[in-house]
Formats: sequence, structure tokens, C-alpha cells
Amino acid sequence: MKIGMVGLGKMGLNLALNLMDHDHEVVGYDNNSAAAESVSNKSFTLANSLKDLVKSLSKPRKIWLMVPAGDITEAVINELAPLLGAEDMLIDGGNSNYKDTLRRGDALKEKGIYFFDCGTSGGTDGARQGACTMIGGDKEKFAEIEQLFKDVTVENGYLYTGKTGSGHFLKMVHNGIEYGMMQSIAEGFDILNKSEFDYDYKNVAKVWNNGSVIRSWLMELIENAFSKDAKLTEIRGVMNSSGEGKWTVETALDLQAAAPVIALSLMMRYRSLEDDTFSGKVVAALRNEFGGHDVLKK
Amino acid sequence: MKIGMVGLGKMGLNLALNLMDHDHEVVGYDNNSAAAESVSNKSFTLANSLKDLVKSLSKPRKIWLMVPAGDITEAVINELAPLLGAEDMLIDGGNSNYKDTLRRGDALKEKGIYFFDCGTSGGTDGARQGACTMIGGDKEKFAEIEQLFKDVTVENGYLYTGKTGSGHFLKMVHNGIEYGMMQSIAEGFDILNKSEFDYDYKNVAKVWNNGSVIRSWLMELIENAFSKDAKLTEIRGVMNSSGEGKWTVETALDLQAAAPVIALSLMMRYRSLEDDTFSGKVVAALRNEFGGHDVLKK
Repeated sequence: MKIGMVGLGKMGLNLALNLMDHDHEVVGYDNNSAAAESVSNKSFTLANSLKDLVKSLSKPRKIWLMVPAGDITEAVINELAPLLGAEDMLIDGGNSNYKDTLRRGDALKEKGIYFFDCGTSGGTDGARQGACTMIGGDKEKFAEIEQLFKDVTVENGYLYTGKTGSGHFLKMVHNGIEYGMMQSIAEGFDILNKSEFDYDYKNVAKVWNNGSVIRSWLMELIENAFSKDAKLTEIRGVMNSSGEGKWTVETALDLQAAAPVIALSLMMRYRSLEDDTFSGKVVAALRNEFGGHDVLKK
Repeated sequence: MKIGMVGLGKMGLNLALNLMDHDHEVVGYDNNSAAAESVSNKSFTLANSLKDLVKSLSKPRKIWLMVPAGDITEAVINELAPLLGAEDMLIDGGNSNYKDTLRRGDALKEKGIYFFDCGTSGGTDGARQGACTMIGGDKEKFAEIEQLFKDVTVENGYLYTGKTGSGHFLKMVHNGIEYGMMQSIAEGFDILNKSEFDYDYKNVAKVWNNGSVIRSWLMELIENAFSKDAKLTEIRGVMNSSGEGKWTVETALDLQAAAPVIALSLMMRYRSLEDDTFSGKVVAALRNEFGGHDVLKK
């Protein structure tokens, strides 16, 4: 199949290479194509603009977006849509908010463009070697592009999830679960680290990865991390987040779903961004006011 | 090696069979030996009492306890200890509280008995086919019984964890992590279940197990569960617990370790045990008092 790939960063370029490994032809575009210029593969051509990319594909066109969610995805779709026609297919493989996806799906449908939302998991290695994808959109039309997902994922690693939005929604919840699992693993190692015992954390993660109930890819990743830095002394415990945990919690609130552990995992990330906290000052001040307890001065 | 196995329930009997698969000889004892009486294996003999079991082993004896933690473990050790002598080795493979283990280790050391605390994970299948074990105790003496653990575990599935208590401590924290991971997975599916989308949860768990970041044995187990009961309609959401989550939280409090997600996972289990709650009544009453908000009457 001939596919347009918009966005040739770590994820998009690896996906493009993965597609080419499976005998697909890729026309790529990125507004900063430095990384892609080194690709020498007879199945790969680099377009100079979105317009060029669209021109080089025959109808019905299949275009895969792998650009950052939010404003950039919005801008790219707004620029692409007028260049496309009825029956063309557009896949958003990024981490878009499913509410944006619902809105975009409706707008593109009016033009006869089939829009697919594809949640992608497995990191950059997954994109290159075999990812995990969850795809929402028109079911009949999905059959026409199903082979693409079959090819770029691990065995059993793709799922048609239902109507538009369901793919990004599922990926969002996947990331919410990831937050809770990561925080739980982290708290366990923190308890070990404060204990009277002297564990080798790499070996702990390793034994837990072999036959235990909590064996998991995340535990394998932390085994890797401990093998490089036994006590993680070289990094700070600042836990950034990129939006999907927050969306999961917002969605839980909208649905009145009790998801306290995922919510708290997100809050603990926020806490980690501050060296000192205003809430800490408030509690210290109150203890001083009512009980004369010492406060630490700046 | 010839080993005494005390406790021939699901875990003990499977471990005994596993040991025999690896050419060890087992003398078993259980005060209710119904399950064990059907075992016909030339390497297996059933003792009529702990005294008989001890007599049938030559010094230094190696005895593995696989009995319920708490009072039963305490009683068995109290009965066994006077029958044992210096250089004998006693392994507690149950889920004992590490504080009990520290106390028992000290008492047995005075008699010259080497006590090993062995945290065991992987369930009954693991006990039979290959478990995961974490063992604390005397390092030099451990070398003499290391082969046992190598034989009954999966590859890389055992770890000498350090001084007495460190094995059970590590298993306790493992279970604490398990609580948080399970609650996080559960909340994710709850959000899916309340959403506007129509997911097949078995397929969701399956795709998440193939290439995603949250792939894990727990996700495989829930895939199994959904394959048998698509929406889990046949079971109630009552989440019992058997102590180790509570110990993990108690330990976190003692160590002043912030482990809110593990703690909250435990609290959510407690919440699930009640159809209605007194705290719910208190909040409903307060809303009625200050704002005249309706309360639901019994």
C-alpha cells in the first residue's frame, strides 16, 4: 500500500521504516525533515509540503499523522482537509484528546473523509519493531486499511475499537492505568529504600519479573534503569506528565467514575514538581497557631 | 536432597510435587492429609506427625513450612523447634509478617537452627510449574539449600535477599505493589464501562497484552476472566484482602514513607466490603443540615 506519513519524529519515522519493512511505500513529510533526510530506502520519498504529499498519492489516499497532539495536530488537519476529497482516509496516530477526535471526525465526515483515531502504545522501539494500536472509525472502511495495522504491530497487537473516538479514548485510559501502575511500583521501591534491609533493586526487579504476580513490562523497564544506576542517584524524582493522565481523571469526573488511585497518581506527579509547597506552609502555620509547634524558617 | 514439607494444601502439595520432579525426596506432613494421601510417587512418604517427619530426616534436617501465616505457623514452629537441633534448617515459605519472622529467627538462632524466610509468588500454578521466591537468612548456609529454590522456580525466579526477614519483607512489598496495580487496572476498566463506547473487555485486555506499556501478568489474568464472563456479571465487586497490603501500609507508616496509592488501594478494598457506609450517612446528614439537600431514607 502507498501511505503518506506526516510527522517524521521518533515515532513517525520508526513507523514509516516499520511500514517499509512490510513492503509498503511511504511518502513522508515533516516541517523539520532533518531526521528523515538520511533515510535511503527505495520505498521512501520525502515530500516538500503537505500539498506535494497529497499530490503524490492516488485516490483514495491514505495518510497517517504522527505529530504532537493539540495545536500541531489541529493545524496539520486544518491544512490537510481542504487538500483531500471524499473517500480519502486520514489516520491520527498521535495522543489526541478523544473530544478533539470526535469534533474532527464530525467535520471530516461532512467532506466525505474517513477519519480513524489510532492510539499507539509501546514507545519508539514498538513503533520500529512492533507497536500496539487501538483504532476507532468506520468499520467497513477499516477493513481496507487493516493490513497496515497488522503489519506494524506485534502479533495480536491491534484492535478495532468501535466508532470514532474509541481508539483515542482507550489509549487515554491505558495511560491512566499506566500512571497508577507506575506510582504503585514506585511506592514499593520507596518502602524498600527506607527499610532496614539492603536490597539490590535491579535484582529485586529481576526476580519479580520471573514468576511473580507483578511481572510486567514496566517492571522490566525499571530493571533496566536500576542496572544502569543502582539507586537512581543520577536523576531527580521530578515526574512530568503529558496530558493523558489528566484527561483520564477529567473523564472519570465527567462519568462520575470513582478512580481515586489514578487521580492520586496524577496528583503525586504534580507534587513532585515542587521543591516546597504552599499547602505544606499552610499546615505548618496552622500547627504553629494552635499548638505552638515549631515551624522551619526560610 | 531429602526435604520435609509441612503443610500439604494447594501450595505445599504443588511445591512437593515440583521438588520431586527435580529428583528431591519429600517427607510430607499435614494435620489434614486428605489431599496428600492420593499422591503415589516413590519419592514421597507421608509422616503421621511432626515427630515422625523429623525422625525420618537425617541431620542436618531441611524442613519447608507451607502453612497459613499467623497462629498456625506459630504453632507449628513452636511444636517443631524442640524436635530440632543445631545446624538443622527451617524454611518458612508462607506469607508471614516479617516482624514475626525477625522474632522467630532470633529464637531459633539461640538453638543453633538456621531459619530462612521465603516469600513465594506466582500462585498455585507457580508452585507446581515454577514459582518466584525471595529468601532471607544466613548467606553461607543458604548456599547449601540454594539448589532447592533453583529447582522449584522459573529461570531467574529466586533471589537471596539478605538477612533474616528480608525475604518476607520483600514479598510483603510485592503484594502492596500488586494492590496498587490491580486497583489501577480496575479503575481503568470502570471508566471504559461507564463511557459512551462499547468495548469488548477481553479484546481490550488482549490488545493491551500485546505490545503496550501496561502489558503484565495481571492484565493476562483479567483477559482470562473476561473471556469467561464478558462483563463479570456473575461476580460481585467485593474485594477481600489477606493481610499483606495492610502490613505494607503499616510499614510505610512506621518508615514515614509516602505510599498513598498503595494505602488507598487497601482502603478501596475495605470500602467494597460495605453495601452502605456510615461515612456516607454522615456526609448525607451534613448536606441536609446545612443546605436542606434531600437524603435517601431507608
